[in-house]
Amino acid sequence: MSCKYPVITLLTDFGIKDAYVSTMKGIILQICPAVKIIDVSHNIPRHNVIYGSFLLLGASPYFPSGTIHVAVVDPGVGTARRRIVIQGRHSFYVGPDNGILSLSARKEGIKLAVEVREKRFMLPQISNTFEGRDVFAPISAYLARGTEIQEFGPEIKDLEELTLKEAIFSEEKILGEILHIDTFKNIITNIPKNLLNEAKITENTLLRVSVGKNSQLMRFCKAYGEVPAKMPLIIIGSSDFLEIAVNQGSASILFKAKIGDDVIVVPY
Amino acid sequence: MSCKYPVITLLTDFGIKDAYVSTMKGIILQICPAVKIIDVSHNIPRHNVIYGSFLLLGASPYFPSGTIHVAVVDPGVGTARRRIVIQGRHSFYVGPDNGILSLSARKEGIKLAVEVREKRFMLPQISNTFEGRDVFAPISAYLARGTEIQEFGPEIKDLEELTLKEAIFSEEKILGEILHIDTFKNIITNIPKNLLNEAKITENTLLRVSVGKNSQLMRFCKAYGEVPAKMPLIIIGSSDFLEIAVNQGSASILFKAKIGDDVIVVPY
Amino acid sequence: MSCKYPVITLLTDFGIKDAYVSTMKGIILQICPAVKIIDVSHNIPRHNVIYGSFLLLGASPYFPSGTIHVAVVDPGVGTARRRIVIQGRHSFYVGPDNGILSLSARKEGIKLAVEVREKRFMLPQISNTFEGRDVFAPISAYLARGTEIQEFGPEIKDLEELTLKEAIFSEEKILGEILHIDTFKNIITNIPKNLLNEAKITENTLLRVSVGKNSQLMRFCKAYGEVPAKMPLIIIGSSDFLEIAVNQGSASILFKAKIGDDVIVVPY
Repeated sequence: MSCKYPVITLLTDFGIKDAYVSTMKGIILQICPAVKIIDVSHNIPRHNVIYGSFLLLGASPYFPSGTIHVAVVDPGVGTARRRIVIQGRHSFYVGPDNGILSLSARKEGIKLAVEVREKRFMLPQISNTFEGRDVFAPISAYLARGTEIQEFGPEIKDLEELTLKEAIFSEEKILGEILHIDTFKNIITNIPKNLLNEAKITENTLLRVSVGKNSQLMRFCKAYGEVPAKMPLIIIGSSDFLEIAVNQGSASILFKAKIGDDVIVVPY
Repeated sequence: MSCKYPVITLLTDFGIKDAYVSTMKGIILQICPAVKIIDVSHNIPRHNVIYGSFLLLGASPYFPSGTIHVAVVDPGVGTARRRIVIQGRHSFYVGPDNGILSLSARKEGIKLAVEVREKRFMLPQISNTFEGRDVFAPISAYLARGTEIQEFGPEIKDLEELTLKEAIFSEEKILGEILHIDTFKNIITNIPKNLLNEAKITENTLLRVSVGKNSQLMRFCKAYGEVPAKMPLIIIGSSDFLEIAVNQGSASILFKAKIGDDVIVVPY
Repeated sequence: MSCKYPVITLLTDFGIKDAYVSTMKGIILQICPAVKIIDVSHNIPRHNVIYGSFLLLGASPYFPSGTIHVAVVDPGVGTARRRIVIQGRHSFYVGPDNGILSLSARKEGIKLAVEVREKRFMLPQISNTFEGRDVFAPISAYLARGTEIQEFGPEIKDLEELTLKEAIFSEEKILGEILHIDTFKNIITNIPKNLLNEAKITENTLLRVSVGKNSQLMRFCKAYGEVPAKMPLIIIGSSDFLEIAVNQGSASILFKAKIGDDVIVVPY
């Protein structure tokens, strides 16, 4: 990469109370002083690889071509899991080979994935507890500086993969589940926009929506404000998945919902 | 704007747990790779336009001339409220026309305000739930790149306005209210420094201060450390408004105070 | 400093809910538009100088040579304590003279320390409550722009110092205390790696570890994953101090531990 303004993003479960994330940035700036570093999130629930993977999936398409995404949610730190770099059609990905990068990389298409074996792209001393700083930060900075992906190590074909359970449309019902609950307590499901088309559900359709054991009637809307305050609605969210929201309220509280709960949508 | 180091600031109620803010930054960097992006705050209480407006008022004067402030606290997202750009005497402002920008823009003086109608300055696909990413981020980046404000759309004269209730001095009493309670649980009132002058209250004056139903004697000080630990005091805060603080303690807890409560200050 | 990419880091107890930190950045960018600003942490417990000092100690070695570290945890703001700049062998430090900078500066070696007296490196109006914005931010930006440290004021030799209590090895026991509890609820002690060597404790040794009034047997490991989930272990952490951790769990909860508690390590 020889772009004038390389961008590195960071996604971790390190939190922002400690100085851990800043040390990753310090290392990056030592190796590639010109880089711009953007935080995706450091508040991934500890060790929750699928949660981090989902956030990265929603963020990476919006970054410039050539952006290097570093994701470190790494319950296996210090053990033998591989360290990898993936070159996708749009972005680069750096992290442990535990699936955290797989959803994003698969979605844009993988050109090459390598296992990083070359120690010269890591800090001289590698701690057993903090490879974000000692391994992944320097690798990303060398990438930003223009190191070719092949230099880091041999190609691998057997990436660890995560997959999101797919929602289905069957017997007039859409069957899905909860992928994420966001800051606003909106419920983000795995039901893509096109499944609503398939089910011939159009705007303003009244729907019976079940979330776990709770169910309610609600309308398929284009904006939160189309229903009265504190009333639930269905909307296509910013990730193109169906969301259950409450206008000026908290859907996940109304439905006592948690990630993984079943979601069933039926026209009324 | 043709400055070499354009600055964009972001203020939202999106929180920092999700990746939402990062996608705004990704879009900005795609359009204007050289820009510096600074977070003002992403922890505005949800939909609290006046709260966000007050924080922006305290921050914008400290940024370089030509800085572009993006503020997205937007209960009306997806509805017909206008999207605006304001050119002030010192800064640019980008956001929904719901008053969030008005305190800051009015304070520095408005040169021109426009409604953004040109779709070419927005993402091709605009979601109904996330105009921060799809509309306001790209607008700010085009501004940073040098697009003239007139190109975004027609001038408007009827901006939505917020106003802070003004404190008054009457019958030997200063009557005000609480604007903000900060991280340190200091109580920030709407009583400006000059009203103390008018009331002939000088440093070291002993005052009776009522906050809601609670009242206490305290001194008008120059530094927190002038009173013993855990004792209350009055001070001119960093926004030039009167603050009620407790040395090494929590004023809002002592007074059971909340934003909007009446504050009465009387020399003792 | 004439480097092309100056770096300023910020460490404060201001939190990230308010706009305070952003105003420091605005001031810095006014004076030195090319600088990169990195947050170390803004979530230092209020007024906890030793806590902030410890985080800075762990972060500063990882930043580029010439980085300017600004640390503002300042219970004495507005009082007569000095404002200082320290030039270390690796970094510059800016802050109040209350010890917050001392651990880091001592560790790398101090070349020169000065008291800042020259008002021209501060904002024209200095509030009594927010020297982070009015004093320390502009000083750091002038340093980044190349102002020589001697220009800020006279040399001082009597810096306020903090010292970490040193762990000792005596009568076959290592006696230390808790320095820090991190986001993961890992317990970071003041027991350095070399004291384990001195005590001839090698990997896999079984140890009796007491934290306050609680004690447990655990193994000295190289990775969290070497013990079963929810089991405690001893590890050398990323700051080269001995840490007590629980694999996929919370050591500080298990031991009801708080900063300052005694830690005793004895081979079993």
